Amino acid sequence: MLVYLNGAYLDSAAARVSVEDRGFLFGDGVYEVTRALGGRLFASDRHLRRLEHGMRELELHWPEGLDGAGVREVSERLLRDNRLTDGEATAYVQITRGVAPRSHVFPAAGTPPTVYAVARPFKGLEHERARGVGAILVEDVRWGRCDLKTIQLLPNVLAKQQAARADAFDAIQVRDGFVTEGANTNVFVVLDGVVRTHPTGPRILAGVTREIVLELVRELRLPAREEPVLATELTRASELFFTGTTTDVMPVVRLDGRPVGNGQPGPVARQLYATLRERMEQAAKISPAATA
Amino acid sequence: MLVYLNGAYLDSAAARVSVEDRGFLFGDGVYEVTRALGGRLFASDRHLRRLEHGMRELELHWPEGLDGAGVREVSERLLRDNRLTDGEATAYVQITRGVAPRSHVFPAAGTPPTVYAVARPFKGLEHERARGVGAILVEDVRWGRCDLKTIQLLPNVLAKQQAARADAFDAIQVRDGFVTEGANTNVFVVLDGVVRTHPTGPRILAGVTREIVLELVRELRLPAREEPVLATELTRASELFFTGTTTDVMPVVRLDGRPVGNGQPGPVARQLYATLRERMEQAAKISPAATA
Repeated sequence: MLVYLNGAYLDSAAARVSVEDRGFLFGDGVYEVTRALGGRLFASDRHLRRLEHGMRELELHWPEGLDGAGVREVSERLLRDNRLTDGEATAYVQITRGVAPRSHVFPAAGTPPTVYAVARPFKGLEHERARGVGAILVEDVRWGRCDLKTIQLLPNVLAKQQAARADAFDAIQVRDGFVTEGANTNVFVVLDGVVRTHPTGPRILAGVTREIVLELVRELRLPAREEPVLATELTRASELFFTGTTTDVMPVVRLDGRPVGNGQPGPVARQLYATLRERMEQAAKISPAATA
Repeated sequence: MLVYLNGAYLDSAAARVSVEDRGFLFGDGVYEVTRALGGRLFASDRHLRRLEHGMRELELHWPEGLDGAGVREVSERLLRDNRLTDGEATAYVQITRGVAPRSHVFPAAGTPPTVYAVARPFKGLEHERARGVGAILVEDVRWGRCDLKTIQLLPNVLAKQQAARADAFDAIQVRDGFVTEGANTNVFVVLDGVVRTHPTGPRILAGVTREIVLELVRELRLPAREEPVLATELTRASELFFTGTTTDVMPVVRLDGRPVGNGQPGPVARQLYATLRERMEQAAKISPAATA
């Protein structure tokens, strides 16, 4: 498999970074995962906007000769060169503060950032989606800037691992009694007929799929509010679902072992997934797979 | 410079890890920094105990053929082979959850962890210590497990960078109004004649130097309490100082630009540093530099 690292395309087995990379020593970097259908990136403007927001907040810079448009071209080339233009794929990109002698303070100005990108085949979770999945509740112990998509992912790793051990798809994180989001998903609840999700801000990542789903909710004229839900209210929810770039819309039918709603995937989640899927397929058709 | 990586001793320029290392992708790892005088590690039992505590909590395992005693031998060899046995040095060791295809859940059982170790010459900050240093106050936005010495260091990096820009030595983090610790130091305050520091628990790293300094405080029969100090109380402090493995005891004489106490390094910090230094030098003499 061909990957991109600092300007070069090379085999993944040869893609190595210095032990002094600030990604490795400090978790000092940001990343994005973008879906691709037929070689065409989905919602890549939104992903790039979020990536560049994180870079600005953390004072990370593009290396000379690369920018957001360039990274998009890198991803498109990885899709082509790895023969991922026929089916579905994900494109991952990570930018760290580069290689420098270990010191908490930023390295000298001009230190080139590390840019790594990879594309992989993707298979949707249709089996899980048809049946619905389980979730668990965990305490949200993450830092105060969850709006930044950084590689500070250890709390997410621990939450996801706890979910996996409980045979659940993801962990729903709860802070001060309120549902924030999953380990790598956003959380939506249908409560008293209203679609609810945590508002954006420092407590959650502003998910691209979350944003699109909220647009679809409005287009479908479903009542919706960006307002936190108490974990204790989840027992009254008629539906609960995750959204995410690789999750799309995923109905949750069991929470900590107890059924959610009637224990089956609900109509809101089903309709939103169908509408999202339609939009993704339309976007893939608007122009053919990139061949430039 | 010779470093250690996964069983091999190699030149630092050749020490590279896979882009799929979970240290690089997730910040999924722990580390330690230990001081060495004359080739002899100082307080290495305490550092190893903390490292193994973090590994247990995060379910990180030693690779086959290595354990805490082995890592100590690795550090001692790095000190010797890099001719660092005459003066002072630091020994750094980092353990990550190894290399695996990117997925939040833990990799398959048996995936070998990545172990990286390096030793570097160290020069004490005697000039800064003689004059005292500046500090700034910042909001503590770190996660809920600050007791684990993980490579999730981005908030610490940002705090330290903010301090550097203000021409300060370190940033004092404040959570819910209380002083927790510095970006890579613990914080002590002399208030109403009592030496105070934040108690151990999930809000701070249980610093090895913090622990030794508390022992010295008791030996010197100074009144002391492990009790959080309000940031607003700092204006009344007669002394303020940082402790840390590379900081030793560092008097703070300016806080956000205003003098602390009489604006000079205070007697408690001076006495504690002198006593700590004495103990370090004694420890280095008890047995000669490791030559095994």
